[in-house]
Amino acid sequence: MDPDLTFPVWSEERRRRIEDFLERGLALPHAPAPLADAMRYAVLGGGKRIRPLLAYAAGEVAAADPAVVDAPAAAVELIHAYSLVHDDLPCMDDDVLRRGKPTCHVAFGEAAALLAGDALQAQAFVLLQSARLPDPAGACALLAEAAGASGMAGGQAIDLANVGREMTLPDLTHMHRLKTGALIRAAVRLGAACGEALDASAQASLDAYARAAGLAFQVVDDVLDVEGSAATLGKTAGKDAAHSKPTYVAILGLAQAKRHAHALRDEARDALVPFGARARRLAEIVDRIVKRTH
Amino acid sequence: MDPDLTFPVWSEERRRRIEDFLERGLALPHAPAPLADAMRYAVLGGGKRIRPLLAYAAGEVAAADPAVVDAPAAAVELIHAYSLVHDDLPCMDDDVLRRGKPTCHVAFGEAAALLAGDALQAQAFVLLQSARLPDPAGACALLAEAAGASGMAGGQAIDLANVGREMTLPDLTHMHRLKTGALIRAAVRLGAACGEALDASAQASLDAYARAAGLAFQVVDDVLDVEGSAATLGKTAGKDAAHSKPTYVAILGLAQAKRHAHALRDEARDALVPFGARARRLAEIVDRIVKRTH
Repeated sequence: MDPDLTFPVWSEERRRRIEDFLERGLALPHAPAPLADAMRYAVLGGGKRIRPLLAYAAGEVAAADPAVVDAPAAAVELIHAYSLVHDDLPCMDDDVLRRGKPTCHVAFGEAAALLAGDALQAQAFVLLQSARLPDPAGACALLAEAAGASGMAGGQAIDLANVGREMTLPDLTHMHRLKTGALIRAAVRLGAACGEALDASAQASLDAYARAAGLAFQVVDDVLDVEGSAATLGKTAGKDAAHSKPTYVAILGLAQAKRHAHALRDEARDALVPFGARARRLAEIVDRIVKRTH
Repeated sequence: MDPDLTFPVWSEERRRRIEDFLERGLALPHAPAPLADAMRYAVLGGGKRIRPLLAYAAGEVAAADPAVVDAPAAAVELIHAYSLVHDDLPCMDDDVLRRGKPTCHVAFGEAAALLAGDALQAQAFVLLQSARLPDPAGACALLAEAAGASGMAGGQAIDLANVGREMTLPDLTHMHRLKTGALIRAAVRLGAACGEALDASAQASLDAYARAAGLAFQVVDDVLDVEGSAATLGKTAGKDAAHSKPTYVAILGLAQAKRHAHALRDEARDALVPFGARARRLAEIVDRIVKRTH
């Protein structure tokens, strides 16, 4: 950790790290070229890399070497990327624009996109084991739980079952805790697990941070879906309403949804108090999450 | 290993083990019910469990406790099951019958089947880490490599790219070495890795067995697709020809394809010679693979 770096300089340096690592991790010399191309298309050249940044920032809390964090940071990003590829498929959200580019199935065909997503999930576990993690088996279990039926995939299933239905605020929050929250918590936990062992209280604090920051991210996403344009978002705007998806804005209204995002940011920052300056990057990330415009 | 058991008794006992383990591993109390239902539907109540049997049989070569083999055996079966769910989707093979039942997307809808497949892949890694494996991180990497772009998913991509095209025998063999062979090799390796450490020569022998047995399985599959009926196969017969898929029968003719299967069985059995009686179950399995009618 270099405390002299401004957040933009720190985050840009970490983004370069993860892009390099992802490039190398998706070289895939033994994979058929069309599959490898679709996988790289889905991952490289775009994306905020918020999950990798969270992993590096959580690593700093535990004084982890960024070179160890690379692998779990990339693994979490591949899980995220595969979920976007499958989410965009015609049988799911049927979306044509992602990160300012045609979605994977528009560019490569549905079957190729399906396989690329499947292979990205597997590649996440390949990359995860490419580092010298203190507890590689625990990391595998943690990532798998976060990605699976009790985590991200479970949240997507709840989302799917509720299209066109009214949802209460607790139900919506539960859905997002699984759909996006589980992977964000995994990013924070895996990053922290690359460094010195943290006690149970510190782990609980990090978890509280990740839960609040993850929800803040989702609330802001819902706000931006209403207020943003495709040009700044790099994806189709207004699609939640078009798909009759329950959102924080629909339940709370725009002004209250924004206040909710700020309250979650405060909750996230409060959880970081025990860590002092070592949690500076985590604090800066949740600030940026709430301030972002795309 | 109990040498007094006949193969049908041994394999039935192992099948009961794996069914029990899969039932428990798919209880999923924290997953949304519709997702968990689709996952269980795709896995339970059918299937030859050839990969789990191979894992148990390979475990016997290394004197492994079957209670340790349960987890990797189940993990490999979940990867196989998820691949079938995704393979059957309309954008892939568009198949309606599997194991004598409507395919997962026919029963649950396309989006739910897509998510069930995704969650099954993740659950494979959850279950893999539920055992006390000698090298759990190595097992994670091995399974991920076998499932991913350089393994099963890569083979499916090659398959997809060659529908309606002529393939040479070496190309077809390369495709199957990835598409089905990689996971079969993983089943054998993971099973053996549950016991005493094997030297490099023994591992190479097991690998040679798995490669030959895996190809034999595929050649027989192609023969059955021509000779079988939906009633005995539990899936749509003749679908390879209907989909203009390259097969061993198309390239070699029926009689020569059968001879090829027998040659591969002999190759697999030859590779087991160094293990003597400890490889009895592996030998019996490849015999059954070549004799099977569905």
